[in-house]
Amino acid sequence: MLPFDRIEYQNRIKKTKEEMNERGIEVLLISDPANMYYLTGYDAWSFYVHQMLILTIDQDQPIWVGRYMDANGVKATTWLHDQNIIAYPDHYVQSDHDHPMDFIAAFLIQSGQGNRRIGVEMDHYYFSAKAYQSLVRGLPNAQIKDGDLIVNHVRMIKSNQEIEYMKYAAKIAEQSMFRGVEMIRTGVRECDAAATMYYNMISGTKEHGGDYPSIVPLMPSGENTGNPHLTWSDRTYEEGEAAIVELAGCYKRYHSPLARTVSIGKPSRQLQELEPIVLEGIDQVLQTAKPGMTCGEVEAVWRRSIAKYGFHKEARIGYSVGLNYPPDWGEHTASLRQGDQTVLQPNMTFHFIPALWFDQHGIEISESIRVTENGIETLANYPRELIVQDPFPITQHAGMMS
Amino acid sequence: MLPFDRIEYQNRIKKTKEEMNERGIEVLLISDPANMYYLTGYDAWSFYVHQMLILTIDQDQPIWVGRYMDANGVKATTWLHDQNIIAYPDHYVQSDHDHPMDFIAAFLIQSGQGNRRIGVEMDHYYFSAKAYQSLVRGLPNAQIKDGDLIVNHVRMIKSNQEIEYMKYAAKIAEQSMFRGVEMIRTGVRECDAAATMYYNMISGTKEHGGDYPSIVPLMPSGENTGNPHLTWSDRTYEEGEAAIVELAGCYKRYHSPLARTVSIGKPSRQLQELEPIVLEGIDQVLQTAKPGMTCGEVEAVWRRSIAKYGFHKEARIGYSVGLNYPPDWGEHTASLRQGDQTVLQPNMTFHFIPALWFDQHGIEISESIRVTENGIETLANYPRELIVQDPFPITQHAGMMS
Repeated sequence: MLPFDRIEYQNRIKKTKEEMNERGIEVLLISDPANMYYLTGYDAWSFYVHQMLILTIDQDQPIWVGRYMDANGVKATTWLHDQNIIAYPDHYVQSDHDHPMDFIAAFLIQSGQGNRRIGVEMDHYYFSAKAYQSLVRGLPNAQIKDGDLIVNHVRMIKSNQEIEYMKYAAKIAEQSMFRGVEMIRTGVRECDAAATMYYNMISGTKEHGGDYPSIVPLMPSGENTGNPHLTWSDRTYEEGEAAIVELAGCYKRYHSPLARTVSIGKPSRQLQELEPIVLEGIDQVLQTAKPGMTCGEVEAVWRRSIAKYGFHKEARIGYSVGLNYPPDWGEHTASLRQGDQTVLQPNMTFHFIPALWFDQHGIEISESIRVTENGIETLANYPRELIVQDPFPITQHAGMMS
Repeated sequence: MLPFDRIEYQNRIKKTKEEMNERGIEVLLISDPANMYYLTGYDAWSFYVHQMLILTIDQDQPIWVGRYMDANGVKATTWLHDQNIIAYPDHYVQSDHDHPMDFIAAFLIQSGQGNRRIGVEMDHYYFSAKAYQSLVRGLPNAQIKDGDLIVNHVRMIKSNQEIEYMKYAAKIAEQSMFRGVEMIRTGVRECDAAATMYYNMISGTKEHGGDYPSIVPLMPSGENTGNPHLTWSDRTYEEGEAAIVELAGCYKRYHSPLARTVSIGKPSRQLQELEPIVLEGIDQVLQTAKPGMTCGEVEAVWRRSIAKYGFHKEARIGYSVGLNYPPDWGEHTASLRQGDQTVLQPNMTFHFIPALWFDQHGIEISESIRVTENGIETLANYPRELIVQDPFPITQHAGMMS
């Protein structure tokens, strides 16, 4: 039932403890559900309430503390012993007088950890300012330290099993993109194209069922193609306009994102101009990047390539990707951008997304990539080009049929 | 293009300022994307990076501060003037040396707000411990106060337009449940049932396209039906087992959740015993609850009803629901539970989910409800019963055909 074998989990815990040691942390409180899953297998949509995985430097197994109704889900999905699963009662949930961190602080004191150096994931979504305040107040003899991204850094280099999962996810992304793009035609509602993508993302392939991606398909269209994080509406696509699709396949929480730009009918002058520039820049990076280069050096290859044509991109062109939960599939560690000193190593994985956005148009063509022993491979195999779609209407439900 | 007219937004801002006044807050920093959407219309998947809506007691319009690449999306989806949209450069994003809150603190000082009483949403997902620390450090002359849930409390009583959107969402939930449940048969993979639900959630109805719900379908099955927050896998359903489905329809970010329990073939003895008890408790609540009662009193009706049969439920039986973004569709204000003093008022809306969970089985039958002038109405119209499904296999893709 576990997605990885026990030795892999033990190895992850060992590496996490090494990082804890280096940062002088004896007890790591983990709020990030991806980090919980990484270390224990815990997989449930319970992160909308406060919960913690407690990893102590001198104990073999972490302890999960969370809501009572979720405790059995931890038993069902992890390798933790039952006595390492601790539940707080429901009156702590979204209450104006009880906070789950009061319970967790009391538990830490009771279990003899109250006077130690305790690391917390300071910038994680699921560790709020109030959670921090409650912990600090509840643990007056502890030294609370920043333990942000400790596990995330361990996650950066994937095992072969993780790469395999990301390749299954890439197959799902290909299929979802292919069937979704088929729906991007004159007169089709954006929501129907999105529904088709979703059907294929979640159903997955015959061999590998899909999991929910941490970000919904991003689908700006028409004059909004310069606004990358818009989703969809029930407006209908029109002939002559462009649409961007950024989506991911997901398998057992591992993502392979993929972005393409579609023109419904003849591409605009701007897209015709941009396509070869972007493709040349992507090719340059894919041919040049290899272990030993820094993320900053990778970005420079792209920057020099588009500068020849007078373009400059403000944002980073990629980020470490893999395992995650909403609201992000990026790992918040390395970014492909100026000044990032992270050195590429085999089995690092990135979403390489050198998009160009302007006030009223934009182009996105991306690849999820893996650093190999001597270069780069893309995880998906999908035509890398501006997609020019037949503008004519199709039957509404054609896209999801196999 | 805006989902509500300008007068409704102005009314919301007025009510928010009244709450700010009562809590002694001059400047409210809003991290919650639902609150941003509620006040301005801003709708994009950009909340995975730090951003803020700044509402100042003596200014008409709020100011949005966020990532450069998202600024045009704010222009496209809100009623804010361009000069109220402020962008920070990309090197602040997920960086180990720059934090967006440094930028936002500097902006507040520069715009003359640095020495005021500033409220922050202390327990919101998207206001991390580090964001709080950075703000406090960057605003040494401000008084930082807890401004949690101020807008959420304004959101509790819906306008007629909001109720209309929730009713469209309820139609979508009905359709998604109906077609999803059709797929819950022997030999069908859970992911294929989930894909069918998703197709129908996102496509929506002919008149009203679907939006993404803030929680994915929760679908524990078999021995896991006591674990409410598990999602799906690629295992196949087996004859004789039960499956729970909790999902929501979503229209323009407004949710109507709905849960049902399915038995594939003859229901177990436990489910046969539980069904009438749960249905009686639900009926009691729906017939009794009305404006003027407290949420605690509503819960007591349920508690007394199931106590007659020797049952007791640990968790709350519902919560305020409506507008939201991942990871929760609940509003984090009122809960239907012992001791909650919130008084029911017309156009409050709740997800009423009096589920019963045990170690290896459980039953969920829920309704999204609206408080009317003199009682309760359900938003969806879906048979309220344990669903007994023909155990035999069906053609894989039948569920999504219309």
